[in-house]
Amino acid sequence: MSHNSFGKNLVFTSFGESHGHTIGCVLDGFPPGMEITPEEIKVELRRRATGQSRHTSQRKEKDDVHIVSGVFEGKTTGHPIALLIENTDARSKDYSDIAEVFRPGHADYSYWHKYGIRDYRGGGRSSARETTMRVAAGALAKKWLKLHHDIEIRAWLSQLGDIELSKGDVSVRDDNPFFTGDTERIAELEAYMDGLRKSGDSVGARIDAEAIQVPAGLGEPVYGKLDAELALAMMSINASKGVEIGAGFESVAQAGSVHRDEIVSGEFQSNHAGGILAGISTGQPITLSVAFKPTSSLRIPGRSENIHGEPVEVITKGRHDPCVGIRATPIVEAMMALVIMDHVLRNNGQINSGK
Amino acid sequence: MSHNSFGKNLVFTSFGESHGHTIGCVLDGFPPGMEITPEEIKVELRRRATGQSRHTSQRKEKDDVHIVSGVFEGKTTGHPIALLIENTDARSKDYSDIAEVFRPGHADYSYWHKYGIRDYRGGGRSSARETTMRVAAGALAKKWLKLHHDIEIRAWLSQLGDIELSKGDVSVRDDNPFFTGDTERIAELEAYMDGLRKSGDSVGARIDAEAIQVPAGLGEPVYGKLDAELALAMMSINASKGVEIGAGFESVAQAGSVHRDEIVSGEFQSNHAGGILAGISTGQPITLSVAFKPTSSLRIPGRSENIHGEPVEVITKGRHDPCVGIRATPIVEAMMALVIMDHVLRNNGQINSGK
Amino acid sequence: MSHNSFGKNLVFTSFGESHGHTIGCVLDGFPPGMEITPEEIKVELRRRATGQSRHTSQRKEKDDVHIVSGVFEGKTTGHPIALLIENTDARSKDYSDIAEVFRPGHADYSYWHKYGIRDYRGGGRSSARETTMRVAAGALAKKWLKLHHDIEIRAWLSQLGDIELSKGDVSVRDDNPFFTGDTERIAELEAYMDGLRKSGDSVGARIDAEAIQVPAGLGEPVYGKLDAELALAMMSINASKGVEIGAGFESVAQAGSVHRDEIVSGEFQSNHAGGILAGISTGQPITLSVAFKPTSSLRIPGRSENIHGEPVEVITKGRHDPCVGIRATPIVEAMMALVIMDHVLRNNGQINSGK
Amino acid sequence: MSHNSFGKNLVFTSFGESHGHTIGCVLDGFPPGMEITPEEIKVELRRRATGQSRHTSQRKEKDDVHIVSGVFEGKTTGHPIALLIENTDARSKDYSDIAEVFRPGHADYSYWHKYGIRDYRGGGRSSARETTMRVAAGALAKKWLKLHHDIEIRAWLSQLGDIELSKGDVSVRDDNPFFTGDTERIAELEAYMDGLRKSGDSVGARIDAEAIQVPAGLGEPVYGKLDAELALAMMSINASKGVEIGAGFESVAQAGSVHRDEIVSGEFQSNHAGGILAGISTGQPITLSVAFKPTSSLRIPGRSENIHGEPVEVITKGRHDPCVGIRATPIVEAMMALVIMDHVLRNNGQINSGK
Repeated sequence: MSHNSFGKNLVFTSFGESHGHTIGCVLDGFPPGMEITPEEIKVELRRRATGQSRHTSQRKEKDDVHIVSGVFEGKTTGHPIALLIENTDARSKDYSDIAEVFRPGHADYSYWHKYGIRDYRGGGRSSARETTMRVAAGALAKKWLKLHHDIEIRAWLSQLGDIELSKGDVSVRDDNPFFTGDTERIAELEAYMDGLRKSGDSVGARIDAEAIQVPAGLGEPVYGKLDAELALAMMSINASKGVEIGAGFESVAQAGSVHRDEIVSGEFQSNHAGGILAGISTGQPITLSVAFKPTSSLRIPGRSENIHGEPVEVITKGRHDPCVGIRATPIVEAMMALVIMDHVLRNNGQINSGK
Repeated sequence: MSHNSFGKNLVFTSFGESHGHTIGCVLDGFPPGMEITPEEIKVELRRRATGQSRHTSQRKEKDDVHIVSGVFEGKTTGHPIALLIENTDARSKDYSDIAEVFRPGHADYSYWHKYGIRDYRGGGRSSARETTMRVAAGALAKKWLKLHHDIEIRAWLSQLGDIELSKGDVSVRDDNPFFTGDTERIAELEAYMDGLRKSGDSVGARIDAEAIQVPAGLGEPVYGKLDAELALAMMSINASKGVEIGAGFESVAQAGSVHRDEIVSGEFQSNHAGGILAGISTGQPITLSVAFKPTSSLRIPGRSENIHGEPVEVITKGRHDPCVGIRATPIVEAMMALVIMDHVLRNNGQINSGK
Repeated sequence: MSHNSFGKNLVFTSFGESHGHTIGCVLDGFPPGMEITPEEIKVELRRRATGQSRHTSQRKEKDDVHIVSGVFEGKTTGHPIALLIENTDARSKDYSDIAEVFRPGHADYSYWHKYGIRDYRGGGRSSARETTMRVAAGALAKKWLKLHHDIEIRAWLSQLGDIELSKGDVSVRDDNPFFTGDTERIAELEAYMDGLRKSGDSVGARIDAEAIQVPAGLGEPVYGKLDAELALAMMSINASKGVEIGAGFESVAQAGSVHRDEIVSGEFQSNHAGGILAGISTGQPITLSVAFKPTSSLRIPGRSENIHGEPVEVITKGRHDPCVGIRATPIVEAMMALVIMDHVLRNNGQINSGK
Repeated sequence: MSHNSFGKNLVFTSFGESHGHTIGCVLDGFPPGMEITPEEIKVELRRRATGQSRHTSQRKEKDDVHIVSGVFEGKTTGHPIALLIENTDARSKDYSDIAEVFRPGHADYSYWHKYGIRDYRGGGRSSARETTMRVAAGALAKKWLKLHHDIEIRAWLSQLGDIELSKGDVSVRDDNPFFTGDTERIAELEAYMDGLRKSGDSVGARIDAEAIQVPAGLGEPVYGKLDAELALAMMSINASKGVEIGAGFESVAQAGSVHRDEIVSGEFQSNHAGGILAGISTGQPITLSVAFKPTSSLRIPGRSENIHGEPVEVITKGRHDPCVGIRATPIVEAMMALVIMDHVLRNNGQINSGK
């Protein structure tokens, strides 16, 4: 597996930098014969796009996705599907003041120490811009899972800073800029975000997600467990600091007699397992939760150093989100879809090949 | 990557069932020339072994590890290192009462629905017995990391049920059955465990871990990020339900101005990042935390069904741990060592190969 | 993929040295539910075994294979199948005269320059002893292919030194020590081998193979092509120096109007393609040919050097085959079976998962 | 590893169809810091390009390569290098007469039987157009190998139909349309090709190649052997039917006393091994030979069937090469460079990481 790929039977590879000419991805191993249009992909891309409310970065990307291979006469061919998006709003500007400075909490520092090279124009490869391609590829996986297995995947904001939200009606989560089904609290969220923006500070977010109608039997013990691969997928998203499956960290203080999900009349009585036992899906909804840290791009000065080891004070100007975690919602969905679809194919590549 | 392997340049593969004749592993890609003896491996195995105090399962395995390949005249050769351990205490007994029953919260259910086959003698492949081999292979990785990079890895119990423990003096964690450095509270832990055992119930645990002296620059964005691969490794351990890096879920409610780790006079002022920025190590200690659920093997009856879909009541007799999470401590260390060593090799396989 | 593994959905990993205590392999990804016994594996092992006629090495190994995991109550479980064989005839002897000498044409030289370590007791990891495990695992793949797809795989000696043999009746190839169906020439082959043994020299061999009843559609363009993976598999066998598919090198001088396999009344008129077009099987028999070099272990003195760069003259005493290529026949079959079975699973993991 | 990727530490992935809008590739794992310009890549692309003499297809592609990621300020960054080329001469024309017809000897047949879909506009994914990207990526690998290890790779035409050529002066092979150093026979080759074109038939070719200054120690036994991976790489090239390393099929009839390469005064006396013993380079030149079949696109009618199983007669009109093998020369070089560079990185990722 290369550094910029994941998956086994369905393999996703992304490339491109935040301020480069083009970003793109290759989705390899996709079954032939599924109809797909750029418009279907754009629906998902718009959910992730910045610049759609005052609560996200004002960078405006058209996200005009091109399917350059793997689709012929509107259908997937079984060959690698390459998707390309041109960066249209990668503003050229004067970077001289930050070109040699490590912004606190940023990739700058670790990238420099690894590669000895830095793309001072923006995050380069570490920018959340890369996640655009995950959402694009995820659109195909979501469609395929729905079409062939009626599997549905949905994520929502469950915590913003210290505001905890209920799941509410997730079907309306796309109608507000917070991906919340807890619609009564939208005004509170807006006020909170306005306050953050005014202060120049930022805050983290917690995203919950579920996949429903997932059949029992997906997941490959013991190092391709469904929960383990979901954990990798979630932790690979920018700013992610934690992943839980089912009851997660709450299970530490639970009694075993409470945690175990009993079955009565063929029905599970709870879902502390999050739909996964021993790395394999049980048929219950797969549930997970991801923690996203607050962005470190702040208007509040931070102490750091430059590439010469000299002390500097850093203030980030320009476009940024006071809470990057919110927009991670469609990315979480996309990653979940890609992982689960890969596991459907992997299961077919062993179990359904003859018992 | 096969289902039972992980790693890229250092690849670990395990095999064997809980009640089979032999369990084993293959560690491929290990550099040649390191001295290693079975005794050095056994030191780690004894840390993980059951039957050493009244607080763990009474299954007693000799864990007599054999190095059957990849070591010649006491040194690694660069060829696959195979380690074998015979199961000496896999008691043969009458399984007829549980052979067709799904124990609540167990692998039974999902394994059956995937494979259509079950190893009723015990967990089979899903048993924690498999983790013995992780610890064995981890012993080699820990030695190599210490020898070549002075990297040290240590894990400890940070929470047992609702008892939260301080880190304390981790150097003495092996001197008590709880892997805790918070030695003043050992009596409290013992009483708690005795109560659990009496009640027939169980509880979860939280294990914290750190790797110190890790150089900056390890980790491969964006799908081989160090934190993402640690997350997969931790979530692949039996009973794991959550993983955090650095501040983890706490970062959700943190302000960005607090979370970002400022640098003053070349020193980081905090380590909320857990030593990893954008998937690459920063040179700070790598810190993580893992949640383990309570075991579902209880003397308290649980409602479930059998393979025919008929309702059953299940009581687990026999040997088990009231808190399986405690013994996960050396497993967490082993997995951390294997992942970090793989990343040292991967970094050499790109970055140190010519800039 | 680790160095000592191959395959994607069906992954084979081997370990162990020629003169170590045990050799073994792990076959991961095998579908659950197939009946298999050690006896069925031993049938194939005996075909490969040395010491069965005067024309092969006199090393006598019992090849008593143990299935230590992945099979429960006589059936595969879907979990990693580990097979172990103890080396019973790894004679301890005095190696001091060859311990520092590079035998001409041997792995000694390149292994030393790579690993800085040598296993002077025998070939170590480079010994043909490793191929025992390929044959053992191949026995399972052959059975599965026959059972589920009626696919049959057979290889035979097509050239010994400069003696070219016809295919003849391949069904009787196991009845003679040469794996030939050209039975009228067995006396000629025996005389030739006796002459070789007397002279202390050796000779190469060409093995032809075919897989029949392979369905159209196996193979994964463009880097998992069926012919490309067969080429890797064949070239990984000890002493292999060349691989051909179908017409092979003859196709260089063929006219396109001759080479292309025309179809009349639904029947291909020839099979120059060897059953593979553009990396995908056509439904015709898959045919290939492998060249094996003469062994370099000779009683005739050869000029070489030792690890100190000093000139030496080397004579190999002890047990060896005057033509190692002959015994490669069952190894070619095993590798072909493992590759084709992996491709059946891979095809199911994409194409048969929904069009 | 996905279907359209190869390599382990240096991973190449290609995408795009012959008649699609764009073809491209991603080269992942490339070390940071090497200077590279599109012009350097175009030098190699021009060697492979069609339309440069009357002896190749008249399809004229500009092959204007764009480096869209992984290079910043003229230097590789360590991140995935994506290269794109727009197809400018993918003529739109009337395909109705061949849309449902399987051309004899073509990918049409096997692709249809696998994917149930066909790209009737041209070879789609099976077209040699894909090899453009191999040559583009190979340009980077060739430069890196030369820069860091002084390794040089060169291939040449050694046989055209039944005309066998000597190696001659390979340094001038780019000065003629046949990639031959046997310059005295160019007139003969031209006449031969003119005759072929007139007859409407085609012929195969044999390409020889060598890599010089390769250090001893590259290659990963036993399933990542250098020769085995070169075999896969060569057999993955369109129209390839055979691969030899060193003496290849000649070694079948060689005596062991002749084949083994003796060492006198530190010098190998021959190179029948082709620079590889037991899968590891010896420091001698690595030599190989590849057989390419004659193209099946002929003006001579061929008998075949269509997708409905009805008999048809096929004549291929339009642009094609009477000998596709000639232009494989730079592709063989590119594949050899990519494989060897991957092995340098892999060796650093194990052996040079500490003995």
